[in-house]
Amino acid sequence: MKLVEMVPNFSDGRNRSIIALLENAVRETRDAKLLDTEMDYDHNRSVITVVVTLENAAELAYRLIEIAAENIDMGVHAGIHPRFGATDVMPFIPLEDTTMDECVKVSHEVGKRVGEKLGVPVFMYANSALTPERRSLENIRNKSFQIEQLRETIGSGRYIPDYGPSSVGRAGATIMGARDILIAWNIYLNTDNIHVGRRIASAIRGRDGGFAYVKSLALFIQEKNVVQISMNLVNYRKNPLYRIFEAVRAEAARYGVSIAGSEFIGMVPVDALVESFNYYMMSDLKNNNILNFHQGKI
Amino acid sequence: MKLVEMVPNFSDGRNRSIIALLENAVRETRDAKLLDTEMDYDHNRSVITVVVTLENAAELAYRLIEIAAENIDMGVHAGIHPRFGATDVMPFIPLEDTTMDECVKVSHEVGKRVGEKLGVPVFMYANSALTPERRSLENIRNKSFQIEQLRETIGSGRYIPDYGPSSVGRAGATIMGARDILIAWNIYLNTDNIHVGRRIASAIRGRDGGFAYVKSLALFIQEKNVVQISMNLVNYRKNPLYRIFEAVRAEAARYGVSIAGSEFIGMVPVDALVESFNYYMMSDLKNNNILNFHQGKI
Repeated sequence: MKLVEMVPNFSDGRNRSIIALLENAVRETRDAKLLDTEMDYDHNRSVITVVVTLENAAELAYRLIEIAAENIDMGVHAGIHPRFGATDVMPFIPLEDTTMDECVKVSHEVGKRVGEKLGVPVFMYANSALTPERRSLENIRNKSFQIEQLRETIGSGRYIPDYGPSSVGRAGATIMGARDILIAWNIYLNTDNIHVGRRIASAIRGRDGGFAYVKSLALFIQEKNVVQISMNLVNYRKNPLYRIFEAVRAEAARYGVSIAGSEFIGMVPVDALVESFNYYMMSDLKNNNILNFHQGKI
Repeated sequence: MKLVEMVPNFSDGRNRSIIALLENAVRETRDAKLLDTEMDYDHNRSVITVVVTLENAAELAYRLIEIAAENIDMGVHAGIHPRFGATDVMPFIPLEDTTMDECVKVSHEVGKRVGEKLGVPVFMYANSALTPERRSLENIRNKSFQIEQLRETIGSGRYIPDYGPSSVGRAGATIMGARDILIAWNIYLNTDNIHVGRRIASAIRGRDGGFAYVKSLALFIQEKNVVQISMNLVNYRKNPLYRIFEAVRAEAARYGVSIAGSEFIGMVPVDALVESFNYYMMSDLKNNNILNFHQGKI
């Protein structure tokens, strides 16, 4: 079966009614299933996870971006997570029989339509990038280059959008593309010392010589008064969860800091779970020996 | 959806062709799915795991018992595991919307038919037992009371079958009933000292004051020259895997012994897996945040 996972990030984590509009659009689409919604108040950001047939992916993606553009005003947006637009990032992930190329094609179809019909500038990233620099999301948008900076620079040098106008309106800009599955994971530390957090984040991330497929960032979480190691695992097979967890634990111990807990954002592939379970249980359980009630349809 | 898991144990672990007949019967049944087959040469015993709709459970169970009765001759059976008959045990486990009472009803329907049509004596156990003594499988059949002893005693005292004749033929007798889901799990220890194994098995099992829902036994495994703690977890929600694992680890450390590994027999419910994963990751991942490719049909 040709399925696509979409994990759009929207720049609103506070208005339930806006998120409900997005959820309803998924429910009204044939052959689409809403798997998860996560609203984050501090980040002022929501992530929804959808599985949809390849056939219906483009239409649903466009509809979601349209709803976000109509309802989220980037002129008044505040939140601690870097952001570009109402629909901030729109990733397409191939599942089952869908190929990466098919996802790339869908992403460009949606990007073109969003640029032309909604007048939202679109930057294509990951496997859909048209230049090597745009393969990495952090090269496009990061802590020091967000919507405020984009407003000044768009249309010049590195900031010519792939689709849409060279101007930033109410809905901001959207980053779009096909990518492999990713695990978003936060580990909380029993400390309010951001410097300790930064050292740990640096020790484990590929960019600084740590695990090749880990992207990480230390954030101070006001609400809880603790430091969070915020991670994206872009290849959980090569860098399994347990190994990262144990590395964070070991690194934190150096500063007399312990792990307070962890949280997953969105979906975790079952084989990532099984791999770490088997590590701790010293076992060799296979995916097809897991009895899954909820998905046990026959 | 009303689903039933069946985990029949057959007294043949050596003839692939007989097991293939049983597997085919599952494949030919509408709304049934074969999840797992385990053939054990030493035990001369096979366990197959099936999920089927409540509606089709009785028919499939009968068909499997019929095939086993036609193809397995208990007159020539040898193996180290205690056994009563060709279909040795036939458990029915309620899944999703099925209730225990519905499984009890199905088990009695099958028991009656097997007794009358196939002439195989049937003993109802677990939640289907008609007397308190028969609730426990070990009270019916055990190391010192197997088919040889049953042949002499059937029809008298405690050994009057619930269905079928008071005589043991070629297919032996069958133990049948509805029960809760169970996890079969072995932990291997880095020792050949059976006395250490027995102390650990005793420390963790309910019968001796350990975890209420753990049944355990220490076995010396010749082939590997190590001791195995062989366990049945009859309520994995009350006694989660990680807690048992850590208790075995702590208890073994007392004797300077470590855990060498563990293995699961048959299926593990996804929520048992998630619970232990969450313990080690200090997270709170929910079942419906697990992305299962193979079962990702929408």
